[in-house]
Amino acid sequence: MVSRFYNFGPGPATVPEPVLNKAREDLPEWHSSGMSVIEMSHRGKDFVGIAEHAEAILRELLAIPSSYRVLFLQGGATGQFAAVPLNLKRDKAKFAYLSTGLWSEKAIAEAKRYGEVQIVASSKERGYTAIPSRSDWNIDPDAAYLHYTANETIGGVEFQSIPEVESLTLVADMSSNILSRPVDVSRFGVIYAGAQKNLGPAGITLVIVREDLIGHAHPFTPSILDYKLQADNGSMLNTPPTYNWYLLGLVLEWIKEQGGIPAIEARNIRKADKLYAAIDASSFYSNPVDPAVRSRMNVPFLLAKTDLEKAFLAEAKAHGLVNLEGHRSVGGLRAST
Amino acid sequence: MVSRFYNFGPGPATVPEPVLNKAREDLPEWHSSGMSVIEMSHRGKDFVGIAEHAEAILRELLAIPSSYRVLFLQGGATGQFAAVPLNLKRDKAKFAYLSTGLWSEKAIAEAKRYGEVQIVASSKERGYTAIPSRSDWNIDPDAAYLHYTANETIGGVEFQSIPEVESLTLVADMSSNILSRPVDVSRFGVIYAGAQKNLGPAGITLVIVREDLIGHAHPFTPSILDYKLQADNGSMLNTPPTYNWYLLGLVLEWIKEQGGIPAIEARNIRKADKLYAAIDASSFYSNPVDPAVRSRMNVPFLLAKTDLEKAFLAEAKAHGLVNLEGHRSVGGLRAST
Repeated sequence: MVSRFYNFGPGPATVPEPVLNKAREDLPEWHSSGMSVIEMSHRGKDFVGIAEHAEAILRELLAIPSSYRVLFLQGGATGQFAAVPLNLKRDKAKFAYLSTGLWSEKAIAEAKRYGEVQIVASSKERGYTAIPSRSDWNIDPDAAYLHYTANETIGGVEFQSIPEVESLTLVADMSSNILSRPVDVSRFGVIYAGAQKNLGPAGITLVIVREDLIGHAHPFTPSILDYKLQADNGSMLNTPPTYNWYLLGLVLEWIKEQGGIPAIEARNIRKADKLYAAIDASSFYSNPVDPAVRSRMNVPFLLAKTDLEKAFLAEAKAHGLVNLEGHRSVGGLRAST
Repeated sequence: MVSRFYNFGPGPATVPEPVLNKAREDLPEWHSSGMSVIEMSHRGKDFVGIAEHAEAILRELLAIPSSYRVLFLQGGATGQFAAVPLNLKRDKAKFAYLSTGLWSEKAIAEAKRYGEVQIVASSKERGYTAIPSRSDWNIDPDAAYLHYTANETIGGVEFQSIPEVESLTLVADMSSNILSRPVDVSRFGVIYAGAQKNLGPAGITLVIVREDLIGHAHPFTPSILDYKLQADNGSMLNTPPTYNWYLLGLVLEWIKEQGGIPAIEARNIRKADKLYAAIDASSFYSNPVDPAVRSRMNVPFLLAKTDLEKAFLAEAKAHGLVNLEGHRSVGGLRAST
């Protein structure tokens, strides 16, 4: 008998049960292909169909303009922390970064391997519980791009709108909030997202990149991270993570069936509002984040008596609620929705 | 009703049916964990158990010495084409490569991004149907390492023993023949293998690296490809491809149940001997490879009348035999076993 937990882990995260059941049905044989998706040649008609279908749904859900390429890569967001500066550096000396939490910090540390990083603004001194106001940003117009982390899973801070950066190329890590709200892709140079938080399985990474930014990679860029080599080969420069791509497609199909991003967003708002309302109404729970930028995706909370955390987690698990621990770097508790 | 094809594709390749059935059983819930493996946190007890178990079986099957680390990475062999020079370069100016086919050529092209490549010997002039004899190799003792491709899937050429390279660090791409025959790991600096040919699912890459070679990566190495960062974090510097890791573990378990490498090797020899004997006895089929280095994994063959290839493939498919086309770069026919 299957009794599924309510999984509040930030990623890998819950996959809709219909998706899991579909994956189960497709084992050991996908349709009447004579084999499972795991075994299919990535260059065969069946898998190419699966891959193209996933891209088509994603383009539809996000209304991706035709001047953007969609890549399905390996290496996660951490791979893109290197790929972004390597592909976009060109003749520029600097990269501009917003620092709003631990994921921004990781992206910044990696970019420093490849050039000078200018911190446009940082909320570090405020314990990463806020986003610096736009008027305080100090942008060097000569930077190759401006990078920000759309949602910080650890601090629970989320951009509620796309920042204005004039003519600068905007790059966003949307690993933890992609497809959770509408986004105007045309405002960006690059959007990337590891799949394991909002899109399904770990092991596949989405990169949405404006065409004119492709083809200028630094000679030291490993081929697997080179946007041009991957774009020219339909993300099949080498064998792609075929089964992950298939599972991602199933999740995208499910999102479409639910009513697309507007339906998902409405559900997220409902869930987050309920959680924050309960926290704010209570004298026992508290959330430290500036209410204007509270994340809909990750809700960190503290107990008035921190020594009760262990008891809280045990009690929650007994009720089927799991993975409510805060990130090991900050402690406390956290619900990822 | 499931009627499975005999899949002769070189990779992604056939996965044993018991493995697929086990994967099916574990959906939507793994054991009594309340969730599928796809959804598990990579830092949780359940997944860490799955990951460690896979490594333990691999270490047992290959008798990997304790002075070697096993990494489970993303990016495939193509990712390692860059990772090997980036991690092993140190203060050396040159990398030594054997050129025995199209996969060697790709590894060489990638290494050239990071330094000078010395071609120790090449069988290109012989159409990659042979391996240059050891006495003709010209090894620069000052190279950072010597790299070879243990089995060339396209040409169907396989090293039948480990080359003698004195004190030079030996690196092998074993993507297409790992676990198909015993190998003395202690003779190598690095062994790597994309999983999709012999180990299961695409999207996870095995790296077996001697400890003293870890910790000297070039500063431009993306963190995901840095052996030290990955070794220090148990291959979980960032979220690993969790489901692929789990499937790989199931395949390793199946190999162990079959009797380990000796049993797999005996089966491979039987299959390859039968195929080559049929080809050699026929005036209609032919194989161009030097008999001393014929691959047990990939058997390319030509028809006396090449215009019959299409009819042959159609007839084979009607009998449930699929993916017998030769690689698109060389044509002809090929059976990958």
